[in-house]
Amino acid sequence: MAQIIGIPKGTRDFNPDQMIKRNFLFDTIKTVFQQYGYLPIETPAMENLSTLMGKYGEEGDKLLFKVLNSGNYLSRVKPEMIQEESLGKITTQISEKGLRYDLTVPFARFVVQHRNDLSFPFKRYQIQPVWRADKPQKGRYREFFQCDVDVIGSHSLLNEVELVRMIDDVFKQLNIEIVIKLNNRKILSGIAQTIDKPEMITDLTTAIDKLDKIGLEKVYEELLQKGFSKENIDYLAPIIQLQGDNGQKLEALQGLIGHTTEGSLGVTELKTVFQHLSTLNIKAKIELDQSLARGLNYYTGAIIEVKALNVLIGSICGGGRYDDLTSIFGLDGMSGVGVSFGADRIYDVMEELELFPENVHHTTQVLLVNFGEEEVGHSLLLLEKIQQSGIRAELYPDSDKLKKQMKYADQKGIPLVLLVGEEEIKSGSYNLKHMKTGLQENITIEQLIKMINISL
Amino acid sequence: MAQIIGIPKGTRDFNPDQMIKRNFLFDTIKTVFQQYGYLPIETPAMENLSTLMGKYGEEGDKLLFKVLNSGNYLSRVKPEMIQEESLGKITTQISEKGLRYDLTVPFARFVVQHRNDLSFPFKRYQIQPVWRADKPQKGRYREFFQCDVDVIGSHSLLNEVELVRMIDDVFKQLNIEIVIKLNNRKILSGIAQTIDKPEMITDLTTAIDKLDKIGLEKVYEELLQKGFSKENIDYLAPIIQLQGDNGQKLEALQGLIGHTTEGSLGVTELKTVFQHLSTLNIKAKIELDQSLARGLNYYTGAIIEVKALNVLIGSICGGGRYDDLTSIFGLDGMSGVGVSFGADRIYDVMEELELFPENVHHTTQVLLVNFGEEEVGHSLLLLEKIQQSGIRAELYPDSDKLKKQMKYADQKGIPLVLLVGEEEIKSGSYNLKHMKTGLQENITIEQLIKMINISL
Repeated sequence: MAQIIGIPKGTRDFNPDQMIKRNFLFDTIKTVFQQYGYLPIETPAMENLSTLMGKYGEEGDKLLFKVLNSGNYLSRVKPEMIQEESLGKITTQISEKGLRYDLTVPFARFVVQHRNDLSFPFKRYQIQPVWRADKPQKGRYREFFQCDVDVIGSHSLLNEVELVRMIDDVFKQLNIEIVIKLNNRKILSGIAQTIDKPEMITDLTTAIDKLDKIGLEKVYEELLQKGFSKENIDYLAPIIQLQGDNGQKLEALQGLIGHTTEGSLGVTELKTVFQHLSTLNIKAKIELDQSLARGLNYYTGAIIEVKALNVLIGSICGGGRYDDLTSIFGLDGMSGVGVSFGADRIYDVMEELELFPENVHHTTQVLLVNFGEEEVGHSLLLLEKIQQSGIRAELYPDSDKLKKQMKYADQKGIPLVLLVGEEEIKSGSYNLKHMKTGLQENITIEQLIKMINISL
Repeated sequence: MAQIIGIPKGTRDFNPDQMIKRNFLFDTIKTVFQQYGYLPIETPAMENLSTLMGKYGEEGDKLLFKVLNSGNYLSRVKPEMIQEESLGKITTQISEKGLRYDLTVPFARFVVQHRNDLSFPFKRYQIQPVWRADKPQKGRYREFFQCDVDVIGSHSLLNEVELVRMIDDVFKQLNIEIVIKLNNRKILSGIAQTIDKPEMITDLTTAIDKLDKIGLEKVYEELLQKGFSKENIDYLAPIIQLQGDNGQKLEALQGLIGHTTEGSLGVTELKTVFQHLSTLNIKAKIELDQSLARGLNYYTGAIIEVKALNVLIGSICGGGRYDDLTSIFGLDGMSGVGVSFGADRIYDVMEELELFPENVHHTTQVLLVNFGEEEVGHSLLLLEKIQQSGIRAELYPDSDKLKKQMKYADQKGIPLVLLVGEEEIKSGSYNLKHMKTGLQENITIEQLIKMINISL
């Protein structure tokens, strides 16, 4: 009896073709991380809800996948609670754990919990899936992978420089052309200060962050709606519309917001970062974007965002500096800075631009045809010899028709097929078929091994 | 305000040291899998409960971690239900998804769901965490990793031979001495048939499977308790206590159960597997164990179990053939055979026997000391040069005291520290400290790069 089968919406199976490409992507990223001295950690899929709740705002709390307590989870639920429909109250009674929503909060929890065993500055990377009960849509999943790289316990702007270099390296190696946008929270604070509305910084940045998407007019509309005056907007206009290269923009910002404490600090920090970067060999386009806010309130210094050129897709990497992250778990004074690579979006970019290298597939290099019981013992010995020389090889397990075995090789993308029949065994010279060209040749096992190992 | 922090019981954080060792373990296993033509897949952490429930027995259902539905999950729960305490009924109303309990059932679901896109025999491996609400204890976790390798869609016993070869290869490369125990469900059926109790095969195998743990007397006791007669036990005694090498055991089994249909088939299958293996270069000890059942009812042919020698720990790898796995999802006739490597236990064995190679750590190879703003620009250029030659290097981000920077290198296990001070910059010859010996030498960057690349 057939059953309707499937997987939860917003989740995915990855088949071998996708997995091999994904592994190529992750391996490239990991290798760069290691090159710069970052070390891997992993945290559990489930965290205590006390760790997660309240860290992502009210909306975030709703998007957490909550796990039912084991055993009689209802023991503390009274029927009246259902009548009152006090969902939140019941949830805390029946669920203590949730699936992680991102890697940042678990990392902060990890640092605080293990602070006595870590040496600071602690440079870590972490590549794991995260889960959000978001409405699934094209390119947005309920289970997706984040690749986070952070350094915690250092205020030095050299970390910002390093992150930009790593971003450049990763995308250089993946052959993706990018622009890296940089800003600093202190620039945004400075802007809010110049119009004497420091307390309205969130409304201000949320509005001007949308410049790319909705255009100047709509940004002004939103600002007015949020309670900024016409005068404010006149003052903001030249800041929002800042033009020129990064040096020119910095000069202009110095004039426009340099008189505020925060603004002046922000300009200085950005100048330092740009100055270091200018001496180094960076391929990516780097752009000061004074409207960049990334909506996240916990950034306190640098704000970083990466967009792919030549393709219509949102940001593929982003992050910044957060001075207070571990203070939510009671550990103050731990400044951190890091970025997160959006693996799923980067994958989509690479598929769209056909950037996965052809030889990324680590499939079987040679298939030995199975001619039946008589020949199979000999084939096994050949197989062992071939594999021991480091070649990926397999013997077709059943003595199916030759056509079926050839089709198997073809579908699996196996480039070479070796026919080990009665005659071949006698002569010690086997018939090798090149699947791409259809060419056949007679070859000894030693010649075959040599041929494959040379062509690597 | 400090908050009590921690992670759910039975789960773990992995620090860099553990991660690097775990990655070494997984990479070794993956490389062997690929060598034999197996390809990776991954499935979502959450599966529909309709996929999972009923597949692991009543006990298994209880151990599933169930995920609360999003939104107003209570909409279908009535207060009366709470009063009736109908836990199961309420659970189905408020939870539709669960965390995967193993990789076998998701794999069966995957095969059925994607059967039109797969070419059979389909050889796949899958390395992912699984979750069980088991009582945590030493060596048993609520989140742990399985490494499964299976071939589905082939009845050939060559697959069994291949699995034994792969097991041998994996543990040979990990330097773990093992014994591979082999049995066949048909041997167990044959035994049940010879005493005319085929319907009691589960009770029979459950009891004799415990031979190693509880000894002969207790096994007999359990059999009597389960309703087997004294006469049955007299007949079973020589079968249970079978001695000798594999050939002798097979001969004896032929005499004892060869007259039953199943018993005869079982002996023939085992003979074929042993015959092939005898011609190949296998390092592990291979042992026919006629009492091996692995408690799992879905095995229909081969049963495989691996134990590490020289260490007191349960099985570290096991599996077998299951002819009907995909039929639970409506697809018949798909015979599969595979094994699962218990990554966490293998890790423990390697730690206990100190088998992780010393050079497994891919930490930073050289640290550049930070002497302050004046020198840092020059250091960045050197760093870039060193990294571009493929060396893992980092510049300490802050101009902390030398002692602190040295301590950082020491704790992170960085073998070389380069001092880039004012004098050194002028001369182009830098002071290099070998952390292990304490030796110092003057060296140019070109010499440093050459030195590290040669020592690899």
